[in-house]
Amino acid sequence: MKEKYKISLMIKKKSEIGVPKGYIFSTGEAAIKKPGRKDIALICSETEANIAGAFTTNSVKAAPVKLNLKNIKSGKGQAIIINSGNANACTGKKGLQDAVETASLTAKALKIKPSLVYVCSTGVIGTPMPMERIRPIIPELAANAGKSNLEHVAAAIMTTDTFPKVIKKKVKINNRTGTVAGICKGAGMICPNMATMLCFIITDMAIAKKTLSKTIKDSVKKSFNRITIDGDMSTNDTTLIMANGMLGNPELTEKSASYKAFKKSLDEITYELSKLIVKDGEGATKFIEIEVKGSVNEKIAEKAAFAVANSNLVKTAIYGNDANWGRIMAALGYSGIDFKEEKSDIYLGNIKVVSGGIGTGKDLDANKYLKNNREVNILINLNKGKASAKVLTCDLTEEYVRVNAEYRT
Amino acid sequence: MKEKYKISLMIKKKSEIGVPKGYIFSTGEAAIKKPGRKDIALICSETEANIAGAFTTNSVKAAPVKLNLKNIKSGKGQAIIINSGNANACTGKKGLQDAVETASLTAKALKIKPSLVYVCSTGVIGTPMPMERIRPIIPELAANAGKSNLEHVAAAIMTTDTFPKVIKKKVKINNRTGTVAGICKGAGMICPNMATMLCFIITDMAIAKKTLSKTIKDSVKKSFNRITIDGDMSTNDTTLIMANGMLGNPELTEKSASYKAFKKSLDEITYELSKLIVKDGEGATKFIEIEVKGSVNEKIAEKAAFAVANSNLVKTAIYGNDANWGRIMAALGYSGIDFKEEKSDIYLGNIKVVSGGIGTGKDLDANKYLKNNREVNILINLNKGKASAKVLTCDLTEEYVRVNAEYRT
Repeated sequence: MKEKYKISLMIKKKSEIGVPKGYIFSTGEAAIKKPGRKDIALICSETEANIAGAFTTNSVKAAPVKLNLKNIKSGKGQAIIINSGNANACTGKKGLQDAVETASLTAKALKIKPSLVYVCSTGVIGTPMPMERIRPIIPELAANAGKSNLEHVAAAIMTTDTFPKVIKKKVKINNRTGTVAGICKGAGMICPNMATMLCFIITDMAIAKKTLSKTIKDSVKKSFNRITIDGDMSTNDTTLIMANGMLGNPELTEKSASYKAFKKSLDEITYELSKLIVKDGEGATKFIEIEVKGSVNEKIAEKAAFAVANSNLVKTAIYGNDANWGRIMAALGYSGIDFKEEKSDIYLGNIKVVSGGIGTGKDLDANKYLKNNREVNILINLNKGKASAKVLTCDLTEEYVRVNAEYRT
Repeated sequence: MKEKYKISLMIKKKSEIGVPKGYIFSTGEAAIKKPGRKDIALICSETEANIAGAFTTNSVKAAPVKLNLKNIKSGKGQAIIINSGNANACTGKKGLQDAVETASLTAKALKIKPSLVYVCSTGVIGTPMPMERIRPIIPELAANAGKSNLEHVAAAIMTTDTFPKVIKKKVKINNRTGTVAGICKGAGMICPNMATMLCFIITDMAIAKKTLSKTIKDSVKKSFNRITIDGDMSTNDTTLIMANGMLGNPELTEKSASYKAFKKSLDEITYELSKLIVKDGEGATKFIEIEVKGSVNEKIAEKAAFAVANSNLVKTAIYGNDANWGRIMAALGYSGIDFKEEKSDIYLGNIKVVSGGIGTGKDLDANKYLKNNREVNILINLNKGKASAKVLTCDLTEEYVRVNAEYRT
């Protein structure tokens, strides 16, 4: 009850901000995993839109991901149907048939081409989709389109998330004001490449297909691909962006004067959404930003930051408010990067705990810093170059273990 | 109290088996981390011995590791001094001086050359060694050599281990019987390359330097390098083997008839010790053996097995007795190996839960299997080739988080 109250409050607060023109939303109950909650949702543009996306690099791909990868080649889309509770992954030919049927039923209900429908699933792997409960709900979803808002969709796609995640931005474009809005779900299994992460972004601006595709991939690289909860990567990760052009602006390309403003809004939305995912990491009590600077190049900085971010020992130390920087040094050491221990500095917040590879004796101050902050910054300076990279993660807690030990039971 | 009682019982039981000839042992209290426990130990051969080893590949190496790497080039050694409570890592020049001084004080007390002394440390990283308490204990240790046994040494080198780890084997060599005995400590931070793992093996057989070096490296590759607790790798990992030749056999080389028997005993000792380390993984309730077979080559099988073994989601599922094989598939998918989902089979114990990439519907049986067994076997058949590899790990529990959040506090 408490949880539900929190969610409805958030939805109320968030929905005061407008959504992009020409989109309608719908949510429904299909009892996919269990009855009693919204677990299926529809995002629909009034007109055919340009669409682009980024998908899991896990070689085991869920059935709907396979379908979307095929359809997205056209760069065109109009509807996204999303379910939580079942990932439709490791379900063989039947799984693919189910995804195709879901798209075609949705297309029929909306009177559009099946190739314009994108299907996304999240939840348990390896269980067949309960199509007998999904089939009847689809016409209902289409009939109710417009009765829900974007925040309701964000709530319906949650699995172990504790709050819906919505970010909206206004973009000045010539004399018009466009809107970009993004929702996502995350929680467990989040690592380098957007694991069990679904993100949907919609805008009313007209944006060229190629531009849309390049920009979303760039944004994802520095946001969803730079977060990690537990190092695991899922079979279902998907980011989709639809641009329906209802604003009436001349189609934006990379050469347009307003392109930068659009790109900036998209970068902000994906970064803020990924921050929300980490803050909602399973069982997390602390949000951790790890910045590696002074690197020869960005790739090395990213690799080092990920090694620290994925270290269970570092994550439990932060949870225990223990400035155990030795674990950070050890993670850097096994990260595979070429670095000089005796050149490296480490800061926790503003407190320099390591100078030239040796402890500064300020561990008690650093313990206090950890104790007093729910948002923790770890800065590592390799003092070898000018490149840097940031990775976001959270601490590892008993609650993480409990959530994941009991997920299916 | 309870813990101590358990340890003393184990020591009593284990010490009924003989040790290799010509070695004496000693343990002492230096209050390195805190007073009231044995935390320093000496293993000493009566004569100069051949020695070989394998060390951490972490680029951040503890001071004593640096010293040992220098001395081991000679292939000669006579004494090993080990402390727990302080890793002497990330301690700069002072740390190296401390390791050198420890070796030289030990050499003086034993009246041997300093280059024959190997120094090993395990414990907290980044804190200077309390040399003022170590200096006076060394002559005492030397004077008391012979008053302790190998089991006492195994107990003195423990950090978060809950029991001392000792394995002994007899080896028939011509008409003589040699003995090989190994001790180790492990627990947290154990991953691919032997993290925070110390292992000492002694034998009374005469073994050629080159043979000793090649054989121990081979053994380590398939034992200590195939275990993982939390994916973290330490700065201090060390395996050392001393062969003092007191048995009087002709020096063994790879061409000797008895070489195979020696190699077998060493492989068994390192494998059994690594099994004990995993069984004693921090907070572990279950021992997990992951075998990947049907692989094109061993390296790919190993990579796949490690991806599964290091997955926090797999490890928490096993802890929760949840046959969530989707997490195993997902880990295989992001492991970076080239495999076909639709060709792969997965077994939990004897229960086939996945056949050709699809669930067999036997999850409830598999849950029962997990519930009823503390030793769990996961078998993955890629059905692509004939190579295989085994990796050992343990489950991830709330207790792991507690131990590591509170380690320094």
